[in-house]
Amino acid sequence: MSDFTSDQKQSVYDVIRKRRDVRAFKSDPVPDETLARILSAAHQAGSVGFMQPWNFILIRGAEQRRAIWEHVNAERLAAANEFSGEKREKYLSFKLEGILDAPVNICVTCDPTRHGPAVLGRSTIRETDVYSTCCAIQNLWLAARVENIGVGWVSILRREFVQSALNLPPHVIPIAYLCLGYPVAFENKPMLETQGWLPRLKLEDLVFEDAWERPARDDFRSTVRKIDSNSPDNN
Amino acid sequence: MSDFTSDQKQSVYDVIRKRRDVRAFKSDPVPDETLARILSAAHQAGSVGFMQPWNFILIRGAEQRRAIWEHVNAERLAAANEFSGEKREKYLSFKLEGILDAPVNICVTCDPTRHGPAVLGRSTIRETDVYSTCCAIQNLWLAARVENIGVGWVSILRREFVQSALNLPPHVIPIAYLCLGYPVAFENKPMLETQGWLPRLKLEDLVFEDAWERPARDDFRSTVRKIDSNSPDNN
Repeated sequence: MSDFTSDQKQSVYDVIRKRRDVRAFKSDPVPDETLARILSAAHQAGSVGFMQPWNFILIRGAEQRRAIWEHVNAERLAAANEFSGEKREKYLSFKLEGILDAPVNICVTCDPTRHGPAVLGRSTIRETDVYSTCCAIQNLWLAARVENIGVGWVSILRREFVQSALNLPPHVIPIAYLCLGYPVAFENKPMLETQGWLPRLKLEDLVFEDAWERPARDDFRSTVRKIDSNSPDNN
Repeated sequence: MSDFTSDQKQSVYDVIRKRRDVRAFKSDPVPDETLARILSAAHQAGSVGFMQPWNFILIRGAEQRRAIWEHVNAERLAAANEFSGEKREKYLSFKLEGILDAPVNICVTCDPTRHGPAVLGRSTIRETDVYSTCCAIQNLWLAARVENIGVGWVSILRREFVQSALNLPPHVIPIAYLCLGYPVAFENKPMLETQGWLPRLKLEDLVFEDAWERPARDDFRSTVRKIDSNSPDNN
C-alpha cells in the first residue's frame, strides 16, 4: 500500500526514537557535505503559504561563541533561583549546552515579513510562520541523527542578546540556537528522564476525542497503550 | 561511522523530501494501530525541560467537523480580500483543506502550565513550549508519510473559535488543526510551488555565517548549491 517498504518505515521510526538533545560533543569537524545535507532537509519542510521564512546562521567564530556562552551561563545561574533545595542542586549539576565544544553552532531564524505582508494561510494566526520554522528544525534534527551528528537546542538565552550578537534586523526572530557535532554518545533516553527530573507521560492520557478531557474510545486507548509501552524508550 | 546504514539514511531523507501538505483525501478510515503509531512518533519529540506540553484531540464527529469547516470557509473567503486581481482569483481557486473528506482531524495543543510554573530551559523564552509542540507535529507528519497517510495543516482559523469548539481551557493553545487520511495523491512538489504562487528559495541564499547577511565561505556555498539542486524536488 505504502511506497515505503517496512524496512524503510522502520528506519524513520528509528530515527524519531533515537533522536536526542545532545550536550557533550567531540571536537571533530562536521564535513561540509554532511552539513549541507542537514540544512537541505530543514529547507524541505512545509511552510505556511510557502513562505520558507527561515535562515540558518552558522556560528564558527571563537569570539562569538564565547560571548554567547557567557550570556547563557549567566542566564543558567540566574534561572537556578526558580528552583529550590534538592531540585536546585540537581539543576545546577546538569550540563545544559555544548556551545564551546561543538564544532559548529547554528541559529535558525524566522523572518515574518518574507513575501508579505499578505501570506496565504496566515490571516488568522500570525505565528504560523514560527511554527513552520520549528518544523524545519525538527527535519534538521532528524537528518543530523542519521548522519551521526548530535544537535543540542540551547534555550536559555534572551532574544535581544542573540539579535544583537548576530546583528539580526529587529523584525527577525531567533527561534533556535543549536549546537552541532559528533556526540560523545547518543543516550537511550532523555537526560532529564534518566536523572528523574520529570517522568515520561503516558501517551494514552494525552489523547482526547472531540473535546478536551473527553477520553478516546476504550479500544483505541488500549491500542495506544500497547504501542506506547512497546516503544523501546519506555523499557 | 553512523549507526544508520546508507539505505536507512536514504529512507529518512526520502520521507523528508516526500512529505506534502495534503488537502484531498479518500474516505477510507485510518486503522487504529496506524494512528497510534503516528501519535507515538509525535510523543517522542524532545521538549523544553521534558515538559511534553502537547495533547492530541481526535475529531471524528460529523457535527463538530461541519462547524469547523464553516468557520474555516468563512475565514478563507474573508482572507481573499488581502489579495487582488489575478492573485485573488488564484487564491480562491485553491483547495486549502480536507476537513470533511478526511476520516479524522486532529487538533494538537500546547499547555504552557504543564509541570510549571518553573520549567527548565524556559526561563528566558516562554514560547519554547510551543516550539516543542511544533517539533512533535513534524514527527507526526513524517510518520504519517511512511504510513501512506496524508496530513494537511489547516491554518485559516481563529484560536478562540477552536478553543470554544473543542472546549479547551483558556490557557491551552491550539497549535495545529490537522486533517489525516489516505490522500488522493502525494504530489511531487508543494501545490503553491506548482501553481506559481511563490518560487522555492535557493538554500544558499538562506545560509549566513557568524552574522546576518554575512555569506558563508565560497566552498561551503558551492557545496550547498550542489546538494540543493540535486534535491529531486528542484528538478
